[in-house]
Amino acid sequence: MRAPTFDQLRRGSGHIHIHGHRGARGIMPENTMEGFRFTLDIGIRIIELDVLLTSDGTPVLTHNPHLMPYSTRTEDGAWLAGEGPLVLETPFADLSRFDVGGLRPGSDYGARYPDQAFMHGLKIPPFDALCALINEAGNEDVWLNIEIKSDPRFPQKTPPVPLFVERVLQVIFDHGLDNRIILQSFDWRILHECARQAADIPRSYLTYLPKPDAPMAVNIHEGSPWMDGISLAAHGNSLPALIAADGGRVWSPYFQDLNATDLSAAQENDLVVNVWTVNETADIDHMIDLGVDGIITDYPGRAQRRLLERGLTWQLTETG
Amino acid sequence: MRAPTFDQLRRGSGHIHIHGHRGARGIMPENTMEGFRFTLDIGIRIIELDVLLTSDGTPVLTHNPHLMPYSTRTEDGAWLAGEGPLVLETPFADLSRFDVGGLRPGSDYGARYPDQAFMHGLKIPPFDALCALINEAGNEDVWLNIEIKSDPRFPQKTPPVPLFVERVLQVIFDHGLDNRIILQSFDWRILHECARQAADIPRSYLTYLPKPDAPMAVNIHEGSPWMDGISLAAHGNSLPALIAADGGRVWSPYFQDLNATDLSAAQENDLVVNVWTVNETADIDHMIDLGVDGIITDYPGRAQRRLLERGLTWQLTETG
Repeated sequence: MRAPTFDQLRRGSGHIHIHGHRGARGIMPENTMEGFRFTLDIGIRIIELDVLLTSDGTPVLTHNPHLMPYSTRTEDGAWLAGEGPLVLETPFADLSRFDVGGLRPGSDYGARYPDQAFMHGLKIPPFDALCALINEAGNEDVWLNIEIKSDPRFPQKTPPVPLFVERVLQVIFDHGLDNRIILQSFDWRILHECARQAADIPRSYLTYLPKPDAPMAVNIHEGSPWMDGISLAAHGNSLPALIAADGGRVWSPYFQDLNATDLSAAQENDLVVNVWTVNETADIDHMIDLGVDGIITDYPGRAQRRLLERGLTWQLTETG
Repeated sequence: MRAPTFDQLRRGSGHIHIHGHRGARGIMPENTMEGFRFTLDIGIRIIELDVLLTSDGTPVLTHNPHLMPYSTRTEDGAWLAGEGPLVLETPFADLSRFDVGGLRPGSDYGARYPDQAFMHGLKIPPFDALCALINEAGNEDVWLNIEIKSDPRFPQKTPPVPLFVERVLQVIFDHGLDNRIILQSFDWRILHECARQAADIPRSYLTYLPKPDAPMAVNIHEGSPWMDGISLAAHGNSLPALIAADGGRVWSPYFQDLNATDLSAAQENDLVVNVWTVNETADIDHMIDLGVDGIITDYPGRAQRRLLERGLTWQLTETG
């Protein structure tokens, strides 16, 4: 087993990395230990996940500031009625009473993942539990791509930035995992705080460009609170140039926002490029053709198979 | 935990059973311990599988008389060139050297299961290993739907019928699993032999009706060697009547062969009806509407979700 190095995250002549999105959301309940274990069992070596803090400061793995009504049941099996409790205002012990093992029938969210298994008794995991799993024998080559879920528009809903980063880093360092971590966020205040507290851990800039029907509901625009005072125009409207100048080593664009020109610029700037969230076969093929370093997908098995069809693999060694 | 009874296999007012086909072929490599574990992990309580005998008489879980070139690699990672060795002529130790963890790129078979994970180092399991798994704590309510793979057209390619049945039954009885078993076969010589050797284990008659483009390549036609001398015409052309008269308790038709009339006849004859292999959402819905007892599917997570959308579950108890 070679020691982890940042350059392992790059595409090679024979491989592109697969990041299992929230584990393997297309197949297993997202951000659960059961889903992470499945993702590792099928041979995926990079796990993507979302972290928030409880009211008692425990980093936990869940995506939204409020527990999601379409994926959360109470102890008696009832679905959450409307918006769930704010994670930031809920002690860990209380969070552990919810079941996040399945998607609600009739929900739009559920309809998006029709093959996701429906399970009983799955808990919101502490980040600590995933780190312990990654430290088990056989997982020495596994990386974590950790999204720190912060929203600058609603600062009362997500943790204070310095505390949030400190708590997440503490778990990482406690487990000695700082050399197998990517820290990603749409909220670049988080990334700047990570630079202050742990400069050596690579930071991934999540980007989502304005869409005709949503010019402001995304993180990249002039004056965006997500960008922490950085101007895209001041960097020639080049996200890769901006990220490199800001000290980022990884760019993680929405896959439909990526084009060949920007990818070339990213490569010139020595950035790793990981696209999210690529689920359809034709889109996976297109990302392979473009030449990204990593594909973040809800269907890691499907991505494995597409890579093999193209004569590629997702591991540093074929039988690794 | 109530004791297993045959009537548990029937549809209830609130549930239809899901049988995980070859484990969960749509998601995980078929007939592997890894696939069976996944199927159990997501809460499926009936495992469908295929059994053959090695040259040294060990029941092993694999589908075709010859190892399948589109899913079998040698120890050095090379795909089988052409038809693989005959299981019946291969000692168990030699079979264990093959890797059945993935589908071959470019193969038609692989194209049918684009989401199946690609894994390394998976072995053809002995039937004994699955029985041991089913006997582990937490699996007390799990049934096995065991297809005994015999082909009367090529008697030299599959084991002698009495020996074959004896060896399979021996494993079942060794593990004390005879009250949680369905024995199924397209080759009714096998079912008749099961009746002689273990009359109390329910037998499932697999049927596949002639198609316009394949009038004889299926098991139900007058004079079919698969039917062991039984005439459909002599039973008013009713498969349910034939099966009931022959001592069968379960009918397992190809799902497109089933209609409401035959299903009613099956119910009048007290048969359990399990349809194979139902993968598309619309087809799952249609089988729910018809009123089958069990759905055999490569995508058990998808079937779970469809049942829930219809206000049904797949277990005897909601949280079981």
